[in-house]
Amino acid sequence: MHQEHHFKSPAVVKDIVIGMADGLTVPFALAAGLSGAVDDNIIVITAGVAEIIAGSIAMGLGGYLAGKTETDHYSSELAREYDEVERVPEVEKKEIRDILSEYGITASTQNIVTEELSKDKNKWVDFMMKFELGLEKPDSLRARKSAFNIAVSYIVGGFIPLSAYFFTQHPKEGLIFSSAITLVALLFFGYFKSKATGQNAVTGAFRTAFIGAIAAGAAYLIASWIA
Amino acid sequence: MHQEHHFKSPAVVKDIVIGMADGLTVPFALAAGLSGAVDDNIIVITAGVAEIIAGSIAMGLGGYLAGKTETDHYSSELAREYDEVERVPEVEKKEIRDILSEYGITASTQNIVTEELSKDKNKWVDFMMKFELGLEKPDSLRARKSAFNIAVSYIVGGFIPLSAYFFTQHPKEGLIFSSAITLVALLFFGYFKSKATGQNAVTGAFRTAFIGAIAAGAAYLIASWIA
Repeated sequence: MHQEHHFKSPAVVKDIVIGMADGLTVPFALAAGLSGAVDDNIIVITAGVAEIIAGSIAMGLGGYLAGKTETDHYSSELAREYDEVERVPEVEKKEIRDILSEYGITASTQNIVTEELSKDKNKWVDFMMKFELGLEKPDSLRARKSAFNIAVSYIVGGFIPLSAYFFTQHPKEGLIFSSAITLVALLFFGYFKSKATGQNAVTGAFRTAFIGAIAAGAAYLIASWIA
Repeated sequence: MHQEHHFKSPAVVKDIVIGMADGLTVPFALAAGLSGAVDDNIIVITAGVAEIIAGSIAMGLGGYLAGKTETDHYSSELAREYDEVERVPEVEKKEIRDILSEYGITASTQNIVTEELSKDKNKWVDFMMKFELGLEKPDSLRARKSAFNIAVSYIVGGFIPLSAYFFTQHPKEGLIFSSAITLVALLFFGYFKSKATGQNAVTGAFRTAFIGAIAAGAAYLIASWIA
């Protein structure tokens, strides 16, 4: 038996990856930056929570609107293709032949396929949507679910680095625990993210932790320099 | 003359949109949140700058790795398709026929197309990549350029809301100016973003400003409540 192993990750995994990648990194780096500049954990916590709220709303609503835009775009292109198939069928037929000729299909076969496709307007339009425009029909409920998944993942991710500032007395001490917890979390997250997307898991773990460390280090240096 | 008006935005516009959407929104909302909780502009500025550094690195490097992952994914799927075409050509031929039959192409035409496609292995594989897997060959330099564009757009976007705290005396006063400047910037940005992506520009302007306002309002309320 032959089995195809092409990878397609479920949409919910993509959402979690998007939300958590930024959720773990940005609040961590912000808190690290502030730790180099202020003396009170409550400021780090307040800023961290404000960032988590801001980031989760911006990413969640952003994800929602991106999904909505995709659906709208698909609908408007679909209407346009139906219109073109109706108004300028010869032009659209030539487009089918052009697409096929790119793959070395002979002129006579191009004509046969074009004739068969153009018998059913719905299939003809579906073909143009996918093969001319590269658009797949989007899931209309996707936008809403995606917004929710991304926002929740951002919040969960964000509270991991921030938690260290709740149980320590000083931002410098918080930073040490926060870095330890977050680097471990980033290694795990990078590992599973890469596994889920079919990449090398160990490289992925280190890449993800590396981004977090760079962002936090840069924020710390620049914030210390300002304050 | 018939002209096609399908929209494809250039990659650089997409990068600017991605970076600036978050850059305008998250630092704005973070600064707004802190304005409800602290009494000193320098804390808002320090946190804002730390956030801009953290966010631009996370988004820029994130964009780079996403581009890199896409390139790697394409290469590995390409290698797999070449291997399959070599090892199990009959299975791959059946896949061509299955794809064509979805569009109502008759069995005899499916066979003709399959025979012609399978004469040239490169075109056969190209066809499978696009029509079976929906993958387009990614630009290998894209990841690096994209990372840079996104990070710079995030920084430019982020300093717009933050600028108000440089020329005011108190966070409450800063917040008023910051909100005014940023809402105007979000309206402009939303307008041009929607125009560039072929959406309704006025709706887009208000949508974008709305996200910013919600994020800032929520961050303000929650941060005031913590402090």
